[in-house]
Amino acid sequence: MSFTPAIAEQRFVLDHVARIAELGVEDDIVDAVLEGAGAFAAGEWAPLDRAGDTVGAKWTADGVVMPDGYRAAYQAYVEGGWGTIGSPEAFGGQGLPFALATAVLETLGTANMGFALCPTLNVGAIEALAHHGTPEQQTAYLPRLATGEWTGTMNLTEPQAGSDVGALKAKAEPRADGKWGISGTKIFISFGDHDMADNIVHLVLARTPDAPAGTKGISLFLVPKFRLDADGNPGDVNDVRVVSIEHKMGLHASPTCVLSFGDNGDCIGELIGPEMGGMRAMFTMMNNARLNVGLQGVQVAERATQRAVAYARDRVQGSRNGKPATIVEFPDVRRMLMRMKAQTMAARALVYLAAAQVDRANAGDAAAKARLDLLTPLAKAHGTDIGCEVSSIGVQVHGGMGYIEETGAAQHFRDARITPIYEGTNGIQAADLVGRKLSGDGGAALFALIDQMRNEAQGEGLIALIDACADVARHMLEAQVDDRLAGSYPFLTMLSTAVCGWLMEAQGRIAAEAQGDSAFLAMKRAAATFYVTQIVPEAMGMKAAAVASADALYAVDAETFAA
Amino acid sequence: MSFTPAIAEQRFVLDHVARIAELGVEDDIVDAVLEGAGAFAAGEWAPLDRAGDTVGAKWTADGVVMPDGYRAAYQAYVEGGWGTIGSPEAFGGQGLPFALATAVLETLGTANMGFALCPTLNVGAIEALAHHGTPEQQTAYLPRLATGEWTGTMNLTEPQAGSDVGALKAKAEPRADGKWGISGTKIFISFGDHDMADNIVHLVLARTPDAPAGTKGISLFLVPKFRLDADGNPGDVNDVRVVSIEHKMGLHASPTCVLSFGDNGDCIGELIGPEMGGMRAMFTMMNNARLNVGLQGVQVAERATQRAVAYARDRVQGSRNGKPATIVEFPDVRRMLMRMKAQTMAARALVYLAAAQVDRANAGDAAAKARLDLLTPLAKAHGTDIGCEVSSIGVQVHGGMGYIEETGAAQHFRDARITPIYEGTNGIQAADLVGRKLSGDGGAALFALIDQMRNEAQGEGLIALIDACADVARHMLEAQVDDRLAGSYPFLTMLSTAVCGWLMEAQGRIAAEAQGDSAFLAMKRAAATFYVTQIVPEAMGMKAAAVASADALYAVDAETFAA
Repeated sequence: MSFTPAIAEQRFVLDHVARIAELGVEDDIVDAVLEGAGAFAAGEWAPLDRAGDTVGAKWTADGVVMPDGYRAAYQAYVEGGWGTIGSPEAFGGQGLPFALATAVLETLGTANMGFALCPTLNVGAIEALAHHGTPEQQTAYLPRLATGEWTGTMNLTEPQAGSDVGALKAKAEPRADGKWGISGTKIFISFGDHDMADNIVHLVLARTPDAPAGTKGISLFLVPKFRLDADGNPGDVNDVRVVSIEHKMGLHASPTCVLSFGDNGDCIGELIGPEMGGMRAMFTMMNNARLNVGLQGVQVAERATQRAVAYARDRVQGSRNGKPATIVEFPDVRRMLMRMKAQTMAARALVYLAAAQVDRANAGDAAAKARLDLLTPLAKAHGTDIGCEVSSIGVQVHGGMGYIEETGAAQHFRDARITPIYEGTNGIQAADLVGRKLSGDGGAALFALIDQMRNEAQGEGLIALIDACADVARHMLEAQVDDRLAGSYPFLTMLSTAVCGWLMEAQGRIAAEAQGDSAFLAMKRAAATFYVTQIVPEAMGMKAAAVASADALYAVDAETFAA
Repeated sequence: MSFTPAIAEQRFVLDHVARIAELGVEDDIVDAVLEGAGAFAAGEWAPLDRAGDTVGAKWTADGVVMPDGYRAAYQAYVEGGWGTIGSPEAFGGQGLPFALATAVLETLGTANMGFALCPTLNVGAIEALAHHGTPEQQTAYLPRLATGEWTGTMNLTEPQAGSDVGALKAKAEPRADGKWGISGTKIFISFGDHDMADNIVHLVLARTPDAPAGTKGISLFLVPKFRLDADGNPGDVNDVRVVSIEHKMGLHASPTCVLSFGDNGDCIGELIGPEMGGMRAMFTMMNNARLNVGLQGVQVAERATQRAVAYARDRVQGSRNGKPATIVEFPDVRRMLMRMKAQTMAARALVYLAAAQVDRANAGDAAAKARLDLLTPLAKAHGTDIGCEVSSIGVQVHGGMGYIEETGAAQHFRDARITPIYEGTNGIQAADLVGRKLSGDGGAALFALIDQMRNEAQGEGLIALIDACADVARHMLEAQVDDRLAGSYPFLTMLSTAVCGWLMEAQGRIAAEAQGDSAFLAMKRAAATFYVTQIVPEAMGMKAAAVASADALYAVDAETFAA
C-alpha cells in the first residue's frame, strides 16, 4: 500500500499556516473531515490509481469510457458528500472553508491524481456560476455541480489559440428563444467527456457576432452535455461531440478531449454573465483552478515521497557499519528523502496559505485578496515545479526499479509533468507575477508580504533571501518590460522559496514547542531545518539571472538558435 | 526533420576543448568522420527513432525482436565502419582518438538514443578484452566486436544486488576443458538479446568455487550467445536464455533483459583476466562506459534542444510589438532555449574534455589519467543531469503539445530519465568523487584542476565558484565520511558547473576572435555568456548544502520519515 493520508501534517498546516481556527469552523469538524476524506480516498480511490494509468480513459464512438471501478468510486464520492465541502450552503454545499476543501482535494489527488482532476474542474465551474450566473442558472445547475452529481469543464483552448486566449474563434449566435447557438472546436478539455456522471456542464468561451477581436470580444457560455427537461433533469442530448482524446505522457485516467460544438447546427448554450464579459468570468474560474493545480504538485510530491520512503526502508543493499543496510541509511539517499519531505511540506504550506486567503477574501478582507492574487502564481508555478522535482527524485531513490513501470514511481514522474503546463504555463505565471501582480499596485502587496517575512524571519540565510527578493522587486518595478520578463522565472522561484522558507521556519519553531505526535513533530523540525539551511541558499544563486537584462537573450536572433 | 548533426559545434569543441590536434589525427580526417557520421545518422538512424519508442524491442520465445528497419540500419552501421573509429588497429579498428569516437557516438545517439546504446556497450566489452583478455581471446573476439559484427553486453546486476555488486551470486564452476560452467540470473542487461548481429558476447561477473564474499571474490567471464566453432564462427547455441524484457518508462528501442545462464547446466564461459580479478576488469569496462552515459546526456539534450528550437520558431502565438509572433520571440521562451543551448554545450565540453584524457592517458600521460579519473564521475552525473533538465525544458517549450506523445518531446524526457541511474547512479558518482577520487590522492588531481581553472578564469562569478569549490574540497578532505557523503551531490554539481563555466568562458573568448561560421560563433558567444553569468551563480547557492554535516539528515531515524 503506497498511500496514507497525511492527516497530522494537513492538520498542522491548516492550524499554523492557514490558521483555520479563524475561519469559522469547529475543531472536531476539521478532524472529522480530514480523517473521513483520508479513509475514503485510501479505500475507494487509491486502489484505482494504477488502472487509471495502465488502462486509462478510452475514446469510443459513444463517448469516453473510464476504467472499471471509476464510475462506482465517483458515485461513492458524490454520495459521501466529498464534493460539497467548500460549496455554498445555499446550493446544498457544506459551506466549509476553501482551505479545508483544499486539504480534502489534496487527499483525493494524492490517492489518485488523474481522477481528482475531475472534481478539481467542478470547483472552477461552480465559482463561475456562483459569481456570474443568473439566479435561474444557479438554481438549475449549482446544486448538482456542488454535489458532483454533474461535473464541469472549462473550454478555453483552441488549436490556433493555446496560451493566447484572445485568438479563439468559437462562435455564439443568438437564438430566438434567448439562448445561443454555439459552434467551434476546443482542445485539451480535461474530462470533456466520461461515463461517471449524469451530465457534464461545459463552460465555453466563444465570440458573439460583431464582437471585437482579442480578449475583449469573448463571452462565456454554459453548454450542457444533456439539455435540461422541464423538470430540470438531463433530457435531450446537446450537439457536442468528443472527437478524440489525446495520447499523453501521463495522467491517463484523465481524458483530454477534443470537443466539437455544433457540428449539426444544434448546440444550445446559455450566456453566463454579460456579453463580452468572458475574460472576467474566466479569471474567476481560473484563479482557484490555478491554486488547485499548484495543489496537484503537492499531491504528486506527497505520493512520490511516500512511495520512495517505503522503498528505501525496505530495500537492503550493501552494508553500513559492517551490517547489511536498507538504503534509507545511506547519506545520499537520506539527502534525497529529506529533500522530498522538505519540498513537499513547503509546497503544501505555500498552497494552503494561498487557499486561506480565498476564505479571508470571500469574507471581505481586501488585504487577503491582494495577498491571494500575489500568491496565486507562486502556488501554481512553484507548487508544480516541486511536484516535478520530487517525483523525479522519487524515481532516483528507486534506482533501476524506478525506471520500470510496474514499480509505480515512473507514473508519478509522468503524471506530474503536465502541471507546469496547464492552467497557464509556469512562464505565464511568472509573467503574471512581474506584470499584473507586481506593477498592478506598484508593489504594495509584494512589499507588505516582504515586510512581514522580514520581521518574522530569524535565520541568516532566510533573511538574506528575503532582502534579495526585495532588491529584485525594486529592480523589476523600474525595469523595461522585456527585462522584467527575462528575469521573471528566476524571481518567481526566489520569492516562492522565500515564502516557503518563512513558513517552514515558523513551523519548525512551533513544532519545537508543540506537544503531540512526537515522530511527526521531529520530522517537521528536521525538514524545516533542512529547508531553511540547504534549500533557501540555493535560491540566492538565482539573483543574477533575476536581474540580468533581456539583452543576453536577444544577443542572437531566432534563426541563430538553429545554427 | 528534428535532427541535424551538430558538426560545427562538435568540431569547435574537439579543437578547443579536447585539443584534438595534439592527438595525432589529421584535420581533414576529423571533418570527414564528423560529416560522414552525421549524414549516416540522419539518413539511417534518425528515421527509426520514433518506431524505437512506439513499437520498441519485443520479447518472443525465440529471443528479442527489434522494430522493422533496425537490423538493416545496424548492418549499415557495421558496413560503414562506424563502430571501428576508436578500436585498436591491431584488431581491425581505425585507431582514431577516443575523443573522435565520442563525437561519432554522440551523433548516433542524438539521432537515436536507444539504438546507440548498443554500440555504446560494445566499447566496454572491447576495453575489457583489450586490457584483460588472452591473445587467443583477443584474436577470437576483438575483430568482430570492433566492427560491431558482434555486440557486447555487461552482466553485473542481479535481483538482490543492484548498486552493491559485491552481493552477486552467479556461479562459475571449472570444467575439464579449462573453461567454466556459468549459472545464475542477471537483470537490467541492455541489449542482452536482439536480432541485429550474428553473435552476442556477454561479459559476466560471477563467483568461482570457494571465492571470498564481497567484491574480492568476483571474476569476469566471457559467455557468447553462440559458441565459436573450429573456424571461429558462431556455432552451437550456448545455454543463455532471455527470460523477459522490462516494461520501461522510456528507451524502448533498447531491450533491457533478464538473462538466465545455465538453466540446463550447459552454459560455457571463459575466464577473462585472473580469477578474482573481476572487479578490476569491471572498472575497465565501466569507466569509459560512464563517460559514454554522460555522453547520452549530451545526445538527448542536443536532440531535445533542436526539437524545441524548431517548434518555437514555427509556433505563432499572441503578438509582440503589435505583430503576430512566433513564441521564440518571447523573453521567457528565449530564456528556456538559451538555457537548453548553454547547458547542452556545457555538457558536451565536459564529456569531450574527459574523453580527450582517455587518449592522453592511453599515450602514457599520468596527469591526464588522474584528471580522467576525476572527471569521469562529473561527466557521468552532471552530463546526465543536464540531459534530464534540458529534455524537461524541451517539453515545457512545447506547452500542451509537449505532453502529447506524438510531438516527440515527451520521448526525450522519458528516455533521458534512465541515464542518472544506470552505470552507477549519480549518487554513486558523487560518492566516488568525494571518496576514491578526492581522498585517493589527497586531493592532488582536484587541486591541480582547480589551480588551472583559477589561473585561467576571468569572470568574477566564475572565480568565486572555483574558490568555493576549493573551500568545499578542503572541507571534504578533513570531514568524516558521512559528512563528505552528505555533501557529495551538491559538491559534484558545484564542481561540474565550475568546470563547465571554465570551458564555456574559454570557448566564448575563442569564438569572439575566431573567423568562420558567424551564426555558430555568435550563438557560442551568447551561450557562453549566459552560462557564465546566469548558470554559474546558481551553483554558488549549493555551497551551504555541500558543507552541511550529515547530522541534518540523521536528525530523525528511518521510521520517522514515514511519520
